[in-house]
Amino acid sequence: MTQPLLRKVAEDARAAARVVAKVAPGTRALALEEIAGAIKARAAEILAANARDVAAAETAGLAPAMIDRLRLDAPRLAGLTRAVAEIAAAPDIVGRVERPEVRPNGLAISRVRIPLGVVLMIYEARPNVTTDAAALCLKAGNACILRGGREASESNRALLGAVHAGLRAAGLPETCVQLVPVTDREAIAELVKLEDLIDLCIPRGGEGLIRFVTENARVPVIKHYKGVCHIYVHAAADQDKALEIIANAKIPKPSACNAVETVLIDKEIAADFVPKLVAALSPKVELRGDAAAQRYGGDKVRAATEDDWHAEYLDWILALRVVDGFDAAIAHIETYGSDHTESILTKDEAVAERFLREVGSSTVIVNASTRFADGGELGLGAEIGISTTRLHAYGPMGAEGLTTTKFVVRGNGQVRS
Amino acid sequence: MTQPLLRKVAEDARAAARVVAKVAPGTRALALEEIAGAIKARAAEILAANARDVAAAETAGLAPAMIDRLRLDAPRLAGLTRAVAEIAAAPDIVGRVERPEVRPNGLAISRVRIPLGVVLMIYEARPNVTTDAAALCLKAGNACILRGGREASESNRALLGAVHAGLRAAGLPETCVQLVPVTDREAIAELVKLEDLIDLCIPRGGEGLIRFVTENARVPVIKHYKGVCHIYVHAAADQDKALEIIANAKIPKPSACNAVETVLIDKEIAADFVPKLVAALSPKVELRGDAAAQRYGGDKVRAATEDDWHAEYLDWILALRVVDGFDAAIAHIETYGSDHTESILTKDEAVAERFLREVGSSTVIVNASTRFADGGELGLGAEIGISTTRLHAYGPMGAEGLTTTKFVVRGNGQVRS
Repeated sequence: MTQPLLRKVAEDARAAARVVAKVAPGTRALALEEIAGAIKARAAEILAANARDVAAAETAGLAPAMIDRLRLDAPRLAGLTRAVAEIAAAPDIVGRVERPEVRPNGLAISRVRIPLGVVLMIYEARPNVTTDAAALCLKAGNACILRGGREASESNRALLGAVHAGLRAAGLPETCVQLVPVTDREAIAELVKLEDLIDLCIPRGGEGLIRFVTENARVPVIKHYKGVCHIYVHAAADQDKALEIIANAKIPKPSACNAVETVLIDKEIAADFVPKLVAALSPKVELRGDAAAQRYGGDKVRAATEDDWHAEYLDWILALRVVDGFDAAIAHIETYGSDHTESILTKDEAVAERFLREVGSSTVIVNASTRFADGGELGLGAEIGISTTRLHAYGPMGAEGLTTTKFVVRGNGQVRS
Repeated sequence: MTQPLLRKVAEDARAAARVVAKVAPGTRALALEEIAGAIKARAAEILAANARDVAAAETAGLAPAMIDRLRLDAPRLAGLTRAVAEIAAAPDIVGRVERPEVRPNGLAISRVRIPLGVVLMIYEARPNVTTDAAALCLKAGNACILRGGREASESNRALLGAVHAGLRAAGLPETCVQLVPVTDREAIAELVKLEDLIDLCIPRGGEGLIRFVTENARVPVIKHYKGVCHIYVHAAADQDKALEIIANAKIPKPSACNAVETVLIDKEIAADFVPKLVAALSPKVELRGDAAAQRYGGDKVRAATEDDWHAEYLDWILALRVVDGFDAAIAHIETYGSDHTESILTKDEAVAERFLREVGSSTVIVNASTRFADGGELGLGAEIGISTTRLHAYGPMGAEGLTTTKFVVRGNGQVRS
C-alpha cells in the first residue's frame, strides 16, 4: 500500500475511534456478541479459507510448527468464538471511575477509564490473534488496525468479514477494525510514523520484526518480546514438585513464550537433583549445561555455550546451570532474562518473598509453573499479548491495558488562588 | 559528549536503578529528606550559581519570560526544598500491592507496583525541574538522567551537588541521579536510542525539541506537549462566575500550559456575554475573534485567523469563537485541542456530564478554571509534567506515573493442565 492509502486507513481509524469511544457500553457488548454469532454462522467459510492458507503454506514448505499455529479446525474455531463471547460478557472498563476524592476547595476529582484511541497490531501466523485483538480493542473502546501475517491472509479476511458483520449489526462503522494487506517493511515503517493518528503499536512476532518496528516508530510501542523464562530450584525446594513443575513448564508446549528455557539449580542440591532432573526430561528434552551440570548429569547433558543462556529455544531444549546461591541466581536472571517470567521453587518463605521482591520481571512466581504467565490464567480474560515493555502494561495485557485514565473535575465556580 | 560516554552514563544509571529499586522504602525517604536538608544548607551557593546563570542570560539577551523562569530567589528556593520534603513524606508507592485475588486452582495473584527503571528527562530553563524530577524518580525507585537547559547549567550543577550529598548520606550511589551536559541535538539523538538501558524519556519543552525527540527515539516517549486549553461557555452558564473563571484561567499566569487559549461562546448567549467578557479582559488581554465575536465585541476584538485556533499563546492573548451549540463546541475542541485541558461552564448537569464523558482530553472540568490541571491541585503532590500521550500517564504525572506493576504469583506446586 502506498503512503496516502495508509494514511487514509489511519484517518478512518481515528474517525471510528471517536465513534466507538462515545457509544453506550451496551453497543460495544452487542457488537462483540454479534461478532461471535457471525463467526459461528460463517464457520464453514472460515475453515475453507483457512484450508487454502494451510495448503499454500505446505506448498511453500513452511515449518510444521508454523503450519500448526496457522491451522484452524472446528474445536479451535469454537475456542476462538468463545474468547470473543467471554470478552463480550466481561464487565465494561470504559467509563469506570477510579479513586474519587473531594479536595479541600470543594473540587470533586476522579479518574475515569478511557480508550487509548487507535491501536496498531502487527503480528504473524496465528489467525486467532485477529479476533482476539479486534475484540479486546473494541471492548476497550478503541479502533484498531490489524496487520496480520501474509500466510494467514485468507483466514484473516474471512474472520474480518465476520467482525464487520457484527459491527454493522450493532450500528458501528466497519472502520473500527481494519486489516491492512501490508507485507513489505517499507509500508510498516510508514504506518508506525503516523503519530498524529495512531496512539499505540503492539508488535508481536519474531525478534527482527520487533526491532524493525522499534527503530522506525514514532508512535509509542509496547513490545511483546521474547520469553527467556527461568526456574530457580532453591536449596530448600520440594524436589518432587520441582521435577513436576519443570516438566510442565517445558514439555507440553515448548513453543509458548512462557515455557521455561533455563533451569538454575542451587549448588547445595545439585549433586542430588541434577541426575533426577536429567532422568525426568531426557531424551524427550535435549539438555545443555555448564560444567557442573554436566558433571552431575553425565553424558546426557551437552556443553552449553554463552548463546544458550540467551536462547529462547521454543523447542524441547533446556539449559541447565548450577548457581552458587540466591545472589548468583538473581545475577544470572538480571544478565540473561527478558523481563518475561521467572519462578523460584523453595519451601523457605523468606527466600521466596525476597525473590518476588527483587526480581523485576513482569511475572514472578513461587512454587508454580512459568506457564501460568498468561492472561486467562491470571484472571484477565483474553490477552492481546505479554508486554515486556515497562509502561502501563507490563506482563499479560488484557482489555484494561488498552485503556488509560483522564482526570475529571467537577466544580462550582472554583478559581485558582 | 561522545557516544561511548553517553552509553557509560546510561549503563551507570541502569546499575543504580537496580540498587535503588531494591532498598528498603525508608532508604529512599531518607535520601529525599537528606536532599532537602542539603539544599537548605547550600542555599547561598545555589543562589550564587543561579545569579551567574541569570547574569549570563541577561548578557545573552534572553527573553524576560525565560529569565524569569530561570531565576531562583530565597522564596523560590524554599518552595523547591518544600517540594522535595513533601515528596519524601508522601506514602511509599514501590511495593504497593494492588487487587490481590486467589484463583480457583489456589494460585494467589496480585499486582505489585515497581519502578520503571531508568528515566531520561529532557527539559529547558527552570532549575526547579532538576530537583522535582530527581525527587519524583527516586520516590518511585528509578534512576534518572537529567538533561537540563544550557542556560541553567550553573544552577543545575549546584542543585545536583545537594542531590548527590543526600544520596551519599543515605548510602545510595550518586549515579541514581546524573546530569548530562549535552547541548547538541546529535547527542540527544544518541541518548534516546539506548533502548536497552533507558525505559522512558520525558521531553518537556518547546515543540521543536519534543518533535526531535519523538523522531529519533527508540525508547518510549511520554510527551509533555502544548496546552491549547478551551473553556466552553454553555448557554446555561452562570455568566458572572464565567467571567471570573475565564479571567482566572488567563490573567494571573498566561505562561502556564494550563492557561486558557480559546473561549468558545454558545451563540444563544453570545450577544449578551461577549460584550461583558470583552469589558472584563480588555485591554489587559488582547482579544482575537471570529466574525460573530467581532460583531458582539466591537473594535476591541481583532479578526482571528486559522492560526489562532491552533495557538498556545502563553501570553495575554485570547481567541474567542461563537459556536452553534454543544456539538460545534466539541467539534472545535476535537479539531484544535491538544488533549491537555478543557472546561465547560454550565448549570445544566446533563450537558456537563455529556461534556465530561465525550471530551477525551487528559483533564476535563466543569465550572472551574483550567488552571486546576496541575499535580498539586489534583492531589498528586508534585508533578514531573503533564502528559499528553495516551499511555499509563495521561495528564498531570506524579511519582505513580513513574511506576508500573508486575504480577506476583504464589503457588504450592501448581502445574498448568
